[in-house]
Amino acid sequence: MVNTGDINGSSNLMDFLDEPVPDVGTYEDFHTIDWLREKSRDTDRHRKITSKSKESIWEFIKGLLDAWSGWVVMLLIGLLAGTLAGVIDLAVDWMTDLKEGICLNAFWYSHEQCCWTSDETTFEDRDKCPQWQKWSELMIDQSEGASAYILNYFLYIMWALLFAFLAVSLVRVFAPYACGSGIPEIKTILSGFIIRGYLGKWTLLIKTVTLVLVVSSGLSLGKEGPSVHVACCCGNLFSSLFSKYSKNEGKRREVLSAAAAVGVSVAFGAPIGGVLFSLEEVSYYFPLKTLWRSFFAALVAAFTLRSINPFGNSRLVLFYVEYHTPWYMAELFPFILLGVFGGLWGTLFIRCNIAWCRRRKTTKLGKYPVLEVIVVTAITALLAYPNPYTRRSTSELISELFNDCGALESSQLCDYINDPNMTRPVDDIPDRQAGTGVYMAMWQLALALIFKIIITIFTFGMKIPSGLFIPSIAVGAIAGRIVGVGVEQLAYHHHDWIIFRNWCRPGADCVTPGLYAMVGAAACLGGVTRMTVSLVVIMFELTGGLEYIVPLMAAAVTSKWVADAFGKEGIYEAHIHLNGYPFLDVKDEFTHRTLAMDVMRPRRGEPSLSVLTQDSMTVEDVETLIKDTDYNGFPVVVSRDSERLIGFAQRRELIIAIKNARQRQDGVVSNSILYFTEDPPELLANSPHPLKLRRILNLSPFTVIDHTPMETVVDIFRKLGLRQCLVTRSGRLLGIITKKDVLRHMAQMANQDPESIMFN
Amino acid sequence: MVNTGDINGSSNLMDFLDEPVPDVGTYEDFHTIDWLREKSRDTDRHRKITSKSKESIWEFIKGLLDAWSGWVVMLLIGLLAGTLAGVIDLAVDWMTDLKEGICLNAFWYSHEQCCWTSDETTFEDRDKCPQWQKWSELMIDQSEGASAYILNYFLYIMWALLFAFLAVSLVRVFAPYACGSGIPEIKTILSGFIIRGYLGKWTLLIKTVTLVLVVSSGLSLGKEGPSVHVACCCGNLFSSLFSKYSKNEGKRREVLSAAAAVGVSVAFGAPIGGVLFSLEEVSYYFPLKTLWRSFFAALVAAFTLRSINPFGNSRLVLFYVEYHTPWYMAELFPFILLGVFGGLWGTLFIRCNIAWCRRRKTTKLGKYPVLEVIVVTAITALLAYPNPYTRRSTSELISELFNDCGALESSQLCDYINDPNMTRPVDDIPDRQAGTGVYMAMWQLALALIFKIIITIFTFGMKIPSGLFIPSIAVGAIAGRIVGVGVEQLAYHHHDWIIFRNWCRPGADCVTPGLYAMVGAAACLGGVTRMTVSLVVIMFELTGGLEYIVPLMAAAVTSKWVADAFGKEGIYEAHIHLNGYPFLDVKDEFTHRTLAMDVMRPRRGEPSLSVLTQDSMTVEDVETLIKDTDYNGFPVVVSRDSERLIGFAQRRELIIAIKNARQRQDGVVSNSILYFTEDPPELLANSPHPLKLRRILNLSPFTVIDHTPMETVVDIFRKLGLRQCLVTRSGRLLGIITKKDVLRHMAQMANQDPESIMFN
Repeated sequence: MVNTGDINGSSNLMDFLDEPVPDVGTYEDFHTIDWLREKSRDTDRHRKITSKSKESIWEFIKGLLDAWSGWVVMLLIGLLAGTLAGVIDLAVDWMTDLKEGICLNAFWYSHEQCCWTSDETTFEDRDKCPQWQKWSELMIDQSEGASAYILNYFLYIMWALLFAFLAVSLVRVFAPYACGSGIPEIKTILSGFIIRGYLGKWTLLIKTVTLVLVVSSGLSLGKEGPSVHVACCCGNLFSSLFSKYSKNEGKRREVLSAAAAVGVSVAFGAPIGGVLFSLEEVSYYFPLKTLWRSFFAALVAAFTLRSINPFGNSRLVLFYVEYHTPWYMAELFPFILLGVFGGLWGTLFIRCNIAWCRRRKTTKLGKYPVLEVIVVTAITALLAYPNPYTRRSTSELISELFNDCGALESSQLCDYINDPNMTRPVDDIPDRQAGTGVYMAMWQLALALIFKIIITIFTFGMKIPSGLFIPSIAVGAIAGRIVGVGVEQLAYHHHDWIIFRNWCRPGADCVTPGLYAMVGAAACLGGVTRMTVSLVVIMFELTGGLEYIVPLMAAAVTSKWVADAFGKEGIYEAHIHLNGYPFLDVKDEFTHRTLAMDVMRPRRGEPSLSVLTQDSMTVEDVETLIKDTDYNGFPVVVSRDSERLIGFAQRRELIIAIKNARQRQDGVVSNSILYFTEDPPELLANSPHPLKLRRILNLSPFTVIDHTPMETVVDIFRKLGLRQCLVTRSGRLLGIITKKDVLRHMAQMANQDPESIMFN
Repeated sequence: MVNTGDINGSSNLMDFLDEPVPDVGTYEDFHTIDWLREKSRDTDRHRKITSKSKESIWEFIKGLLDAWSGWVVMLLIGLLAGTLAGVIDLAVDWMTDLKEGICLNAFWYSHEQCCWTSDETTFEDRDKCPQWQKWSELMIDQSEGASAYILNYFLYIMWALLFAFLAVSLVRVFAPYACGSGIPEIKTILSGFIIRGYLGKWTLLIKTVTLVLVVSSGLSLGKEGPSVHVACCCGNLFSSLFSKYSKNEGKRREVLSAAAAVGVSVAFGAPIGGVLFSLEEVSYYFPLKTLWRSFFAALVAAFTLRSINPFGNSRLVLFYVEYHTPWYMAELFPFILLGVFGGLWGTLFIRCNIAWCRRRKTTKLGKYPVLEVIVVTAITALLAYPNPYTRRSTSELISELFNDCGALESSQLCDYINDPNMTRPVDDIPDRQAGTGVYMAMWQLALALIFKIIITIFTFGMKIPSGLFIPSIAVGAIAGRIVGVGVEQLAYHHHDWIIFRNWCRPGADCVTPGLYAMVGAAACLGGVTRMTVSLVVIMFELTGGLEYIVPLMAAAVTSKWVADAFGKEGIYEAHIHLNGYPFLDVKDEFTHRTLAMDVMRPRRGEPSLSVLTQDSMTVEDVETLIKDTDYNGFPVVVSRDSERLIGFAQRRELIIAIKNARQRQDGVVSNSILYFTEDPPELLANSPHPLKLRRILNLSPFTVIDHTPMETVVDIFRKLGLRQCLVTRSGRLLGIITKKDVLRHMAQMANQDPESIMFN
């Protein structure tokens, strides 16, 4: 009883698709995949392997290899992405320093590496080792003075322009898809959209190279988003080695989801955060199996990166911090304030950036991408050099802002007035009065904050690889550090105030400004991306600060609330909308009262639906229908009168089947009848040879009843990943709803511009 | 165009359900909920509030309150669950110590609290403060000697028996649902099953009290699973305060998912791990919104618990460890070995425990739950007392096993032979030769391991609250510590071996036995529960050891692989199957080639489907049909000849509607015609008054075509949470598939006993 379906079920469709007819079963560019079909194709493949594996030892081994190929792909992705990340880090280090000077012993050493071999052991002198020469020292033999400053300034800008020009040219010429952060497109691809070449080898190569260039050029951007793109390219590369993944767009997306986790894992050295990021932010279909594999791949990548050890500190994480004092309840108030700041920054950034990007798309501005990059780089370099906090690389800045001031710290930020009688241990220094250095630093940081806020808006979205995490973290860290120092000085000078009295005795170390920087960073990143759990996990993996979950979470949640009050979209969703990608967001809730019949095509007054009949249309009729319409497929009904649905035929497969039949099958001519039935009737002697097409008929198209609420329909499209869905009433076919229709309807309901959604 | 559906769509059904007719819209006990319907009811409610909120300020505020009620519920759950967990911890501490002695100053102090005020400051003496009296000291004034030992031994057993007897009696008399870990049932409930009273107030109260009793009695069980149950009871309690949650079974489950995260969060002090546990292991429908809220609730709970500070160390986590040395590549080999051990233990435990529980269900054994508990407690206490590692509470044991030996450590496990010339700092002690204490400890630990393994199999599943995490962790930690000490001594004595030469110079601290214990614990817990990501996160939150992700992950993945090779089911799934709950696991893959037509009822040869017609059946016909069948609902068709589907009527609502009509509507008699059409035809003068029932008709029942592969159908049931689905062919209704049919079919396909699935 159970086997009756084997003979004539959808399985035949699958068999047909597995035949080596070129291009059958694949999708066209900028089209949406059918998740259900991909899934059932994979089950079929799996079933075949399982049954074959019982036949011989060899097949059994092949079956085992197939089962393990998922883990192998993960291992390979982890290794390659980890290696690439290490190489990028080393290259960025070297090229960033190249803007200021060069190592005489070995020009390929960065400043730090150059001075490793130096004998000077104190912290300050180590940076001034003789092997490392600033450009002014090398060229005019002066390290101080106006002319040296101007020469260094000039060369700094020139190097930055050179790097940026190279980057934008490479992107323009070789791989236009290598620009941007890539996360909006990857989200769209993972939701089932096809963009050919977006994850190709060229994109991988060019994105890696240009990423090094743009980060080194000192532009206000980070390498985190692009890392995800690079890792996804690796994922795509390796998945094409295994037919299990290369031939199935659904399975391929499982690999890509894991690769996205790998990208974040290597960008920050945060494997768990990476997996959660992929789960919360990027992925669409994320089964538990993928969760485990992602975690494995993320670990391999993090481990590979640690073996390369680009930060020279054996730490997995990017910004390792260690704080020595706990936080106090009263500090929640400034933390929440930072959350509010983060939310406002997120809103401001998204609005301004989207407005600017829209202008770029619609005006002449978009026609001069190279010039735009050059101008922005010139402005960035010009304004960044004079301020020590913007001159250096953003990662170094963040690292300094996050750190607590130890006794040996030589940074300007730690220029406190020490009590000469202090005999405390090194790592437990009480709050002290700020010195002039700290005040100076505060002013410079305030300027850096304004500069970063404005320039980032114009930088993100240019035709170069650009990530948003590092600039957002920098903005938050600067704001947080300023607030932190403020609270610290307030507590030092007014420790008799009622709020300070309980937790801040004189001579105690009660406020850690570095923690404020961390909290501010979380808030700003949260405001822009609207991540919560993955954000907190990344932050605490980044810093190793497990005790500080509550402050981080308070800031992240506040920031999300504030930003959500102004607009629900995070920056990635906003860019998806701007670009009109057909992305059906899981987070949007559809709460309108419309029904399937309101959305389906044809609308009232439109010509009726183009259908095929099961046994009365000729080849010519069908060819005309295909020529006249551009639908992806046609429902097949019993007859035009009864309109009872029997299946669905894909346009692509119909074309291929007719073409093949005309070439290979004798007697199939223009007036041959197409039969979708199981047993075509006996033929008259002189009638042309019929064309039997039941094998390409999908016998189980998805149907809903016309009264189904759109809410349910949206849910079905989301959860099952449909391309289209047929609408019936009392068994009669009424119309069709495609993913495009759903998206258009959702946009309409949200009072948005319906045109922006139309991409496919 | 968009609004046409408002008049006659499913909205009317909803309006009807919102009427204060008692019991309409609720479900019966041991029935499955319809997720789609719950969701659409919630959207309706939401829509109503949104439109009302524009009417007046008061309604606007009410709308805001409604929107925030989700966060309020989370806050309340966090506070209550955190408080309960704190109280449980304190009570367990006190009662565990009560088995050995009493505090003379204040009998409600535990041993540690009693000695806090003591003047003895050295570590060893602190445990022997004069205020704390062992029973033998108090009763026969002897602290040493045979008679003292026997008296203490006897009282230890008596107290254990008293606690266990109290616990099992309370469970038997007041709340039979309070037994077990509760996680299998909570998984089932979250998947949409109704078990009334399982999360009720009585269960909450009794489970909390008995949990304290059984943990104190020294049985081999933990409080983690029951904590989840307790937290879910809190969740259920608070969700009944808000109509948004109390009246919607779907929304209620969102709260319960978050509560499950809270349970783990307070059990271990691991908020992130808790959220991931809920996501990976427990929850069924886990939208991102729930992710954020869970995290918030978990943090509130962890924070509340920290404020109560039951461990007296201001730490959030249960077993805080700090290791001072990194791990080396070569150590991966013993770690993977521990993973294999964990997998084998998991398999052994699951098989034996399930076999024993099945025996309990099917033989006379199940009739004497009190006796069973008493016997197991007696055996446990009898065997546990002589061994110092089993006498104390399991948490203390684990804590000691996880810890690295510092210089001041007085534990027997740290009885190494010190080099008298050692002048190293306190926390960086080289590997040393083991003393007699360590060898003694190894033997005792080996015995403890065997004892724990065997007794846990018989303990889990008795009629008392019993968690599995702590015993599993204990087994793993013991095995790990033994292996760790072995490797350490091997490295000490053979540091010239090639594998040790690179990383273990004499005088270096290269092996940390505590880390092995941690890895072993992760492996064993993974083998039993098959968690991976959440497990690793819990372990590293538990211990604060961020650097040890790779060893933990290696062990967890190995353990999962090994255990999966023997059987795919974790302990919770195994118990779900054993109890026959209707649980559709997301993890199971259905890969058979059957079609919807193979599974639907009626089967070939069975009488045809019971249907209603839209305009030709009388009230009496329907009443007879309802009496003769026990189906949950009936499809409504145009006529028996055409069999075209127009909707679906729930049995429950049909009964209520007819009852109401008979009572209230004049002229409705037994031979009144039931109309499901929009406009009943004009009546003849003498015909009875018709009964219009379109409002209870679900106009959008879910349908699939008979050729749909069962794989897709299973997917639809899982992802959309359906109760039933109608099967059509060319527009004609053929049959129906219920969740029960799907489960039965899956069991059949997996060659399992089909009877065990039948519960509903």
